[in-house]
Amino acid sequence: MTRRKSLFLVLEGPDKSGKSTQARLLADTLKGRGREVLHTREPGGTAVAEGVRRVLLDPALRVDPLAELFLYEAARAQHVNEKILPALQRGAVVLCERFTMSTDAYQGFARGLGLKATAALNRIATHGLQPDLTILLDIPEDEFDARDASRDLDRLEKEPVDFRRKIRKAYLSLAKADPKAVVLDGRAPAAEIQARILSLVEKTLR
Amino acid sequence: MTRRKSLFLVLEGPDKSGKSTQARLLADTLKGRGREVLHTREPGGTAVAEGVRRVLLDPALRVDPLAELFLYEAARAQHVNEKILPALQRGAVVLCERFTMSTDAYQGFARGLGLKATAALNRIATHGLQPDLTILLDIPEDEFDARDASRDLDRLEKEPVDFRRKIRKAYLSLAKADPKAVVLDGRAPAAEIQARILSLVEKTLR
Repeated sequence: MTRRKSLFLVLEGPDKSGKSTQARLLADTLKGRGREVLHTREPGGTAVAEGVRRVLLDPALRVDPLAELFLYEAARAQHVNEKILPALQRGAVVLCERFTMSTDAYQGFARGLGLKATAALNRIATHGLQPDLTILLDIPEDEFDARDASRDLDRLEKEPVDFRRKIRKAYLSLAKADPKAVVLDGRAPAAEIQARILSLVEKTLR
Repeated sequence: MTRRKSLFLVLEGPDKSGKSTQARLLADTLKGRGREVLHTREPGGTAVAEGVRRVLLDPALRVDPLAELFLYEAARAQHVNEKILPALQRGAVVLCERFTMSTDAYQGFARGLGLKATAALNRIATHGLQPDLTILLDIPEDEFDARDASRDLDRLEKEPVDFRRKIRKAYLSLAKADPKAVVLDGRAPAAEIQARILSLVEKTLR
C-alpha cells in the first residue's frame, strides 16, 4: 500500500470565528474516509505547552510582550517537534487551530514587536515548517456583538473594537501576502464554509 | 551631581566556578564606594522567570532542546526589560551571573542548536543589549573532581567529563571572539581573582 500524502492545514482567525467547529467537521469527514487526523491547537497540545500556558495566564504575573512572544514560540517548538512533525511523517492530516500567522498578527502587528522579529522566531521554532494550506476565517470587527449577544462574552468583552479591527487588518494583509492562504467569510453558515474548506483540502491533497 | 556611569558586567563559567562568590565580593566593594549595585542571575531574577524555571525543572516534562532555548530567552527578555535595563538607566552597576554567552555555549554548541540560532534569539531577547565586560572563570574540566571532593555533587555528578570539556571549549572560543570578554583562571585564590576583576571594572568605568 502506498503511503498517503500528509497535509498540514492551519485554521486562523480571531476567537469565536468558528475555527474549532470547522476543524471538528473536517476531522470527522476525513476520518470517515479512513485518514489519520491530528486535530490540535496553539498554544497547547503538549505538557510543556500547558506549563507555558500556566505562566501566560497567571494573573499574578505581568508578562513582558517580548517574553510572551518567546513563551508562545517555546510552546510551538515543542508542539511541532513532539506532535506535528511526527504526525506528518506518518502521512497524517494535521488540522491546527492557530499557528505562525497568529503570532505575526497578534505579537508582530498588534503588540508592535514587528514582523521581522516574529518571522525570525517563527522560522527557528518551526524548523522552517510551513502549512500546506491556511484558511483564514474572516469576521468584520463589528460583527461580534451581534453574533455573541447570546453567548459567553468573557474574553471578547475585554477586547475593544479597535483591537479587533487591528487584528483583522493584520490577518487580511498576512493572508494576502501568503500564496497558500485562503480567506473565507466567517459569517457564512457553518455547512457552507465547511464545503469550501473540504474542496480546498481535496484540491491540495490531489 | 552628575549621574554615575552605569556598568553591565557578566560573570560566565560552568557551575561552581566561583561566579556567585566573585559577584558578592565585588558587590560589597562597589556598595562600599557608594554605588548602586544590582546583583542578579539567569535564568531567574523575575517572577516570570521563576515560572519558566518551574517548567524547565519539572521532572514530568521532557522539554525539547529548542523549546528549552526559547524558554531561556523568554526569561531573559523579561529579566532585561524588567530589571537590567531600568537599573542601567538609573546609572547602577549590574552584576549578572550568566547571560547570552551561556546560551551560546550550552544551547548553541553543546546541545547542537547552532550559534546562528542562539545569536539571533539573543539579539531579539536583549533588545541588542551587550555586556560592557564579560569575565569568564575558566576551570579545566578535570579539575572539578578535586575541587568538589568535599562539596555538594548533585549537579556535577550528572555531567560527564566530556560534556564539561565541550562546554569549556565553547566558552574559550566564544570569549576569544568577544573583544569585551576576559578569561581568568578560576583555580586561583578567590581574593586574587577578585583583585583582577576589580581592576578590570575600574578600567571599564574610567
